[in-house]
Amino acid sequence: MASMSLNQDTKGARMRYELFYWPTIQGRGEFVRLALEEGGAKYIDVARRAESSGMGMPAMLRLMHGDGPHLPFAPPFLKAGDQVIGQSANILYFLGPRLGLAPSNEAGRTWTHQLQLTIADFIDEVHDTHHPIASSLYYKDQKPEALRRSADFLQTRLQKFLGYFERVISLNSSSDKFMVGAELSYVDLSIFQIIEGLRYAFPKAMKKAEANYPRLIDLHDRVAKRPRIARYLASARRLPFNKQGIFRHYKELDA
Amino acid sequence: MASMSLNQDTKGARMRYELFYWPTIQGRGEFVRLALEEGGAKYIDVARRAESSGMGMPAMLRLMHGDGPHLPFAPPFLKAGDQVIGQSANILYFLGPRLGLAPSNEAGRTWTHQLQLTIADFIDEVHDTHHPIASSLYYKDQKPEALRRSADFLQTRLQKFLGYFERVISLNSSSDKFMVGAELSYVDLSIFQIIEGLRYAFPKAMKKAEANYPRLIDLHDRVAKRPRIARYLASARRLPFNKQGIFRHYKELDA
Repeated sequence: MASMSLNQDTKGARMRYELFYWPTIQGRGEFVRLALEEGGAKYIDVARRAESSGMGMPAMLRLMHGDGPHLPFAPPFLKAGDQVIGQSANILYFLGPRLGLAPSNEAGRTWTHQLQLTIADFIDEVHDTHHPIASSLYYKDQKPEALRRSADFLQTRLQKFLGYFERVISLNSSSDKFMVGAELSYVDLSIFQIIEGLRYAFPKAMKKAEANYPRLIDLHDRVAKRPRIARYLASARRLPFNKQGIFRHYKELDA
Repeated sequence: MASMSLNQDTKGARMRYELFYWPTIQGRGEFVRLALEEGGAKYIDVARRAESSGMGMPAMLRLMHGDGPHLPFAPPFLKAGDQVIGQSANILYFLGPRLGLAPSNEAGRTWTHQLQLTIADFIDEVHDTHHPIASSLYYKDQKPEALRRSADFLQTRLQKFLGYFERVISLNSSSDKFMVGAELSYVDLSIFQIIEGLRYAFPKAMKKAEANYPRLIDLHDRVAKRPRIARYLASARRLPFNKQGIFRHYKELDA
C-alpha cells in the first residue's frame, strides 16, 4: 500500500528499528516481528542479542525500569529513533504506513487498527485459557479453572472471534483475499499468526473448526507463501511455539 | 490542547456524534462518554433513546448484525458522519484531537493512546475478577474462581497498574497534574473513571491502597470538579454503577 508522507528520519527503509521483547517466546512480539519481516525493515531484536554487545535482557530491563519520558508498561516496545512505543497494536499502527502495510487514508488506518485491537482481545482470551486465575501462578496451580475456561473458549469464544474475522473478509468490498482493502496489511499477518497458534495449541479443535473459516485458512496459506515470510519462518529468527508463550499446547485443554 | 487540522465535516464542534453502547451500564462506553462530555460534543447515546424514534437497542443491534463495510465486533462504537469506529481506545484516539483532548503532535498522540491501551488491559483484568471463567456464565456459577482471581488482583495486579500510572504522572516532565503533557487529555478522564470504579467495587481495598497513589487521587479529584464533568456526573446521563457493568461490588471479593 502507498505510504503516507513521513519525515525522512522515520521512513521505513532508512530507519533501524529496535524491538524489545522476551527473547524465548513468540508471544505478543511476534505480531510486530511479522510486520517488520514482511516490510523488509532493518531491525534488531534487542533482548535476543548478546549481553556483551550491550544488548540482551539487561538492555530491555534498563528501559522498562528507567525514568524515560514514555515508560512502557510491558514488552513489546519499539524504539524508532528517540521514540519509544509500547502496546503491540499501537506499534503496528505506527509501523503500518511506514512499512507499506496499512491503507494510505486515515479512515482505512483506523479500521485496520480496530481489527488489530480485536485480535489483541482475542489473544488475551487465548492466554487466559491456560492462566485464568493469575499470570504469576504456574499452569499446574490453576488447572481445574483452566479446564473450565478452555471448554468455554472452544465452545463459544473461538467461533465468535473467528466467525467475525471470516465475516470481515467476506464483507470487504475491495477484495476477497485480504481483511482490509485490496492489498496486504499487518492485520493479515496477524490472522496468519492466530491460525498458526491455534493449530499448535488446539490441534483437535482446529481440525474440526477450520472448515467453517475457508477465507481465513486461505489467507493464512497465502501469507505463509510470501517470499519474505517464508524465508523468515525457515530462519532461526522465528522462535518455535513452546509452553511459555500465549499459545500453549496442553492435551487436556484441547477436548 | 490544539486540534490538528481536520476536514470540516469531522470537526468536533460541528459534528453530531452517535454513540452506540449498552443502555444500562457504564462499562467501556463510559470512557467515551466522559470524553464527549468534557469536549462539549453534540452526541446521541443511541441505545438509550426511544425505539419509537428509530433508535434504542434495535438500532444498535441492526448495526452490529448488518453488512456494513466496517462491522464492529462489540459495543461501544461511534458513528461520525458515515464512519463507524469501534474499540473504545480507538474511538478516543479518533476523538482526542477533534475534542481538544489529545496532544497536537503525532508522538504525543501515540503515547496518549499507548496509555489508554494499558488502561483497557487493566479494565479487562477488573472484569475478570468477577468473570474469570466465562462471560456467558453468571457470577454465582464461577464464584470460587472469582474469589481466587480477585485475591491475586488485589495482591499483585492493582498495585502493578496503579503504581505504573502514578509513575507516569511523576515522570511527566511538562506537568505533575496530568498524565500526558501540560493539559488535560482523555487519559486523565479515564484515570478518574478507574478510581471511581475501583472505589465502588473494592471500597475496603482502595481505602488501604489510596495513600500510595497521591497523584492519581489528586487527578481524580480535579477531574471531578471540572464544570462539564461535574454537570455530567450530577445529570441523569451518568448511569450509576451496578452489578451488570465492569466494576461490580461483591463484598466477598473485596477481602
